[in-house]
Amino acid sequence: MKARIFVTLKDGVLDPQGQAIQGALGALGFSGVESVRQGKVIDIELAPEDASEKRIREMCETLLANTVIENYRIEML
Amino acid sequence: MKARIFVTLKDGVLDPQGQAIQGALGALGFSGVESVRQGKVIDIELAPEDASEKRIREMCETLLANTVIENYRIEML
Repeated sequence: MKARIFVTLKDGVLDPQGQAIQGALGALGFSGVESVRQGKVIDIELAPEDASEKRIREMCETLLANTVIENYRIEML
Repeated sequence: MKARIFVTLKDGVLDPQGQAIQGALGALGFSGVESVRQGKVIDIELAPEDASEKRIREMCETLLANTVIENYRIEML
């Protein structure tokens, strides 16, 4: 059983990686880039007996996302 | 106009970050985690006159993805 987890910075949290990408795109001649935010996507494969959204939520809360500054979203595939 | 870009390692490319997550989940008592792969998600906001999938594809090829080891997928939002 597979799950995909998106971890993104909350609105208002500074994103230096995103800003670096935005600057680099501008330097490469790509105009009109108004904002860039970078996040993580984590693909997890679980044994069928361990696969539940509740369990994955626990993984996010304890390890995968820093819930002070990050949001996460779970997609069961 | 917004676009979301997923950058993931190609199959067969070693993913040390994913392995570290897998090890840490095991150490925290989450059993049954068979594989973990980590990728990036990049949200870009473009001026309407600059927003085309072709242009974003160019950004991916030149900067956002290392196409030797990474795949990318574009979603126009």
